[in-house]
Amino acid sequence: MKRGTFLLVAVAAVAGVVAYMAAATSGQADGQAAPIFVTTIPHGYRDWRLISVAHEEGNLNSFAAILGNDVAIKAYREGKLPFPDGTIIAALHWRHEPSEENNKIFGRRQSFVAGPPTNVQFMVKDSKKYASTGGWGFGHFNERDGKKPGDAALLKSCFPCHQKAKDSDLVFTRYAP
Amino acid sequence: MKRGTFLLVAVAAVAGVVAYMAAATSGQADGQAAPIFVTTIPHGYRDWRLISVAHEEGNLNSFAAILGNDVAIKAYREGKLPFPDGTIIAALHWRHEPSEENNKIFGRRQSFVAGPPTNVQFMVKDSKKYASTGGWGFGHFNERDGKKPGDAALLKSCFPCHQKAKDSDLVFTRYAP
Repeated sequence: MKRGTFLLVAVAAVAGVVAYMAAATSGQADGQAAPIFVTTIPHGYRDWRLISVAHEEGNLNSFAAILGNDVAIKAYREGKLPFPDGTIIAALHWRHEPSEENNKIFGRRQSFVAGPPTNVQFMVKDSKKYASTGGWGFGHFNERDGKKPGDAALLKSCFPCHQKAKDSDLVFTRYAP
Repeated sequence: MKRGTFLLVAVAAVAGVVAYMAAATSGQADGQAAPIFVTTIPHGYRDWRLISVAHEEGNLNSFAAILGNDVAIKAYREGKLPFPDGTIIAALHWRHEPSEENNKIFGRRQSFVAGPPTNVQFMVKDSKKYASTGGWGFGHFNERDGKKPGDAALLKSCFPCHQKAKDSDLVFTRYAP
């Protein structure tokens, strides 16, 4: 190994240890085990294949497409539970908006489309890294480019709710044929 | 070219001509120019990328994901109109159903998911083949495997309605970021 390469590896190793320690100790001021959140948007998620669609009424008023990376789609189609490490599920949310344009053409108020984007959320399966939250890392970003990640208070609310979907490995979304 | 290969090509060519003639003359008994419908499900459409989502209330009560082949996605992302030949847009429809499971967890009736699949529809751009219907061939299949295509009466209703979306080359769906 060349000296330069070794240095890089050594620096990367130290950086990795520091990052791990930072992650492992963050949020532990209150003595709780730290959930480790997804802090970077997974690359290329907008090109992933469709798992299903979803719509929440009420305050959320949201319209969602749920996409999965190749590992996720394979697991869904084969009915594999729990989801294997490497699974990533993305929920793209928009406002659930009436389409005046379509309603005019149809002659009645019946048509809803994706309005402005609101956020994109991720579930990343890594049974070691995210052991304290059922093997899933949760992520929330207010912008599609990942520049406005959700804060810790918001992200802490993900796991307690998803935990209730134990029969489907904490995942709400079913595959839509 | 080997003799066997040539025979296959010749047979395919004849079959193609017969199919073309059948398509070109079908429905012309009443002297009208024949709209030529999409009669075969495009291969691999369930793996295509997402364009957007849609929801129709009323009698339709439908939940849709609109997917596009590579030509469609490229045109959408580049804002190209009219869509180039080779564009295929797929609308996968399911019933828009409340999720009792989710509502129980959320503690309120707000969650809707994709219910049983109802149909899948296609728009195929081929400005020569489908010249009489704005360059678009329309298809409707009651089963995801394409075994129950929509009848001519149903398919004849596609173009007059889509024709009203002239500003977007007869396509209702906008790309959702």
